Amino acid sequence: MSDPVIAELRRVLPSERTLEDPDILDSYSHDEAEWAPHSRPLAVVRPGNAQEIQQIVRACLTHRTPIVPRGAGTGLSGGANAVEGAVVLSTERMTAIKEIDNTEQLAVVEPGVVNDHLRSACAEHGLWYPPDPASAPWSTIGGNVATNAGGLCCVKYGVTRDYVLGMQVVTGTGELVRLGRRTAKGVAGYDLAGLMVGSEGTLGIITEVTVRLRPTRPPERTIAGYFDSLADAGHAVAAIGAAGLIPSALELIDRHTLLAVDAWKKMGLSDDANVVLLARTDVPGAEGEQEAATISACFTESGASWAAISSDSQEAEALFAARRLAYPALERLGPVLTEDVCVPRACVPEMLTRIERIGQQHDITIANVAHAGDGNLHPLLIVPADDAPARRRAQRAFEEILDAAMDLGGTVTGEHGVGLLKRHGLTRELTEPVLAMHAAVKNALDPHGILNPGKVIAPCAP
Amino acid sequence: MSDPVIAELRRVLPSERTLEDPDILDSYSHDEAEWAPHSRPLAVVRPGNAQEIQQIVRACLTHRTPIVPRGAGTGLSGGANAVEGAVVLSTERMTAIKEIDNTEQLAVVEPGVVNDHLRSACAEHGLWYPPDPASAPWSTIGGNVATNAGGLCCVKYGVTRDYVLGMQVVTGTGELVRLGRRTAKGVAGYDLAGLMVGSEGTLGIITEVTVRLRPTRPPERTIAGYFDSLADAGHAVAAIGAAGLIPSALELIDRHTLLAVDAWKKMGLSDDANVVLLARTDVPGAEGEQEAATISACFTESGASWAAISSDSQEAEALFAARRLAYPALERLGPVLTEDVCVPRACVPEMLTRIERIGQQHDITIANVAHAGDGNLHPLLIVPADDAPARRRAQRAFEEILDAAMDLGGTVTGEHGVGLLKRHGLTRELTEPVLAMHAAVKNALDPHGILNPGKVIAPCAP
Repeated sequence: MSDPVIAELRRVLPSERTLEDPDILDSYSHDEAEWAPHSRPLAVVRPGNAQEIQQIVRACLTHRTPIVPRGAGTGLSGGANAVEGAVVLSTERMTAIKEIDNTEQLAVVEPGVVNDHLRSACAEHGLWYPPDPASAPWSTIGGNVATNAGGLCCVKYGVTRDYVLGMQVVTGTGELVRLGRRTAKGVAGYDLAGLMVGSEGTLGIITEVTVRLRPTRPPERTIAGYFDSLADAGHAVAAIGAAGLIPSALELIDRHTLLAVDAWKKMGLSDDANVVLLARTDVPGAEGEQEAATISACFTESGASWAAISSDSQEAEALFAARRLAYPALERLGPVLTEDVCVPRACVPEMLTRIERIGQQHDITIANVAHAGDGNLHPLLIVPADDAPARRRAQRAFEEILDAAMDLGGTVTGEHGVGLLKRHGLTRELTEPVLAMHAAVKNALDPHGILNPGKVIAPCAP
Repeated sequence: MSDPVIAELRRVLPSERTLEDPDILDSYSHDEAEWAPHSRPLAVVRPGNAQEIQQIVRACLTHRTPIVPRGAGTGLSGGANAVEGAVVLSTERMTAIKEIDNTEQLAVVEPGVVNDHLRSACAEHGLWYPPDPASAPWSTIGGNVATNAGGLCCVKYGVTRDYVLGMQVVTGTGELVRLGRRTAKGVAGYDLAGLMVGSEGTLGIITEVTVRLRPTRPPERTIAGYFDSLADAGHAVAAIGAAGLIPSALELIDRHTLLAVDAWKKMGLSDDANVVLLARTDVPGAEGEQEAATISACFTESGASWAAISSDSQEAEALFAARRLAYPALERLGPVLTEDVCVPRACVPEMLTRIERIGQQHDITIANVAHAGDGNLHPLLIVPADDAPARRRAQRAFEEILDAAMDLGGTVTGEHGVGLLKRHGLTRELTEPVLAMHAAVKNALDPHGILNPGKVIAPCAP
């Protein structure tokens, strides 16, 4: 017999919106954070518009049923993992780009629009939507906004937060409201749109987003550097900052990752380098040429064994292939537990040293890719399949990496979000009074605790 | 006999921190929004550090005494106006720049640091703090953060919000907490630091701010254009956007302002122009030369009667003098009521036309300066001194300008804040459920309603 909330959902929505097939339910039970707890949801609902989302929230409010909002399920912290008795609300049907406005340089989109689709659509108008998480080919704007997604170009252009002008959300009390604005500037009231960004569906369900765009940028030049040591690569990153430059990407790939990519794709990178830095610049003309030359000089003067500039897009793509192939190459070796700490830029070499030590102590291979220019590291903990003790060791190493990042003045999550995996870390990063402020804000905007309960912060009493 | 809260303040703080001289109290009774209501405060306290601010909040909490935080008192919306029985907390003694970090490109400052002082100190390190409100020579970072101040260069570089990484605040429950971060990226929990920005002291008292910096930028080129009509100037602004350019400033000065400047400084501007556009570009080298030429061409092709590029800083300063002299020139004509609406960029000419009509209907001279590139207009309503009926007509015109901005899809405040002057406007801009969200957040973080009560939103029951 169906749960009463399902009966109500079937009554208020077209019946095909609500799915109950167990196999389908299982496929919606978690995002990419399989390591985090998840359960089979009661149902999956796939609304077609904002009004239907409001109906769903109201039905769930009546029955005090938890709602887990979900974009493409590419999250890495478990923010979209289903909890016991929850309804998963998938925005997959809401894929309309409602408006691209050239004069105001903004777009209005439904939450299920895929990041790359928005980017292509903007390009046709001579406009650019910068935030570029690695999941851009699949992840949705709604999910990007809910997690405040970062990416490669945010070292120069900022994160999702910096591009959200306004949004429409359904609140925890079932109201459909507009927050933020369409104008370039505006300070009318509290920044509630900004508060929603990165709140991982715990304060409201996003039904529409208005994003700021930029004019299309010039083609990028890529600068690659091979290094023997992490310390040298760290100096190169600092030297670029000291030269007053802001590259449009600055990525680091460590030896473990190079070895994994080589083992798969025979690129021979690990024969020549222990650490690779990849920078990009999109400054146009002679100034851009000069900037690329300066970055290359920063590499060489910091001890790079090889450095080169490429403005040929195919050649540049080949250089970035190792970065792009890192995850799949490492996943060939076993299940990967993805970290996402951010430390002060200057601490990147020290943090990588500590990660290496933590890996040795727990007998866990930890590969690293990093948005080095931002101090945002992604240690990737590799565990042999079906090795339960190794899995437990990896989880201890995971928590120790969080502590090391905080010890260096960093944060437990740079861009992936708290979800479930970083909840304990969050309670260590934030003080009691700040956690109490979180609980107070959550209670204020979701007084019945139905919006993605148990994520980010512990569930709060109503 | 002193109020008991004053006795307690004198007990917990060094005695010279608390001022009670009536003349001094009067001088702290309002900011630049003399048009808004204000009262003589009970006392003025000038704490020397965060711990003293915490003591003040706790004393006021005990006695349920309202606290009105105040930076330099340059606000234009009455956010720092004293209410009956309040203690004014002035940050004027807290002027330390605690840290400027070159590698992390950030500064840590006390709230009373003057904007221009921070900018000069950063320049010595090859760094730049972009937000540049017109009040920059006097206004403080604390006040800038509390109001999310804008300025001229935010058309390219964003507003104060975009430069706040973290802060220390005393909450409405008397806790001293750190919000936000020091790292380039971070998504650990709700963006409470962002929520504080622009909340005008109603959610917490800022005791320290960590701001993001940029490398020093190249010298700017200035492009000036004289136009016969607002429509032509509006086309020029749209043409610059359509050309894919983001100037580092794009200001508009209307005929009333030009006449007032000429009447004072005999610059003869109004002989040649009805509307002046002033643009800047800070793109370096040949690309910058090209960008300046394109902006100049946009002016000419949109019907400018004269357009010229200047890379000589003295000549450029002379061109910007009319913009800088606008306020004092207009204040010579009588008390000025300063507006601050923001509309979609494309609506600037239509908005200026509506403002002209509203001025005629109410027999009020309304001059305009505008951050045209952002759609942020500052209509300046001039009223003869001691003319009470004209004052009432100006206030009606003020409210009608807000309605016109909203009718065009704009907002009642682009950068000055709600304070007292825009409270009615805010209730028209936001829907009931969104106002209820504001009240819920206010109650959550200031449950006893002691933080700048009556500002931004109506006071909420505890």
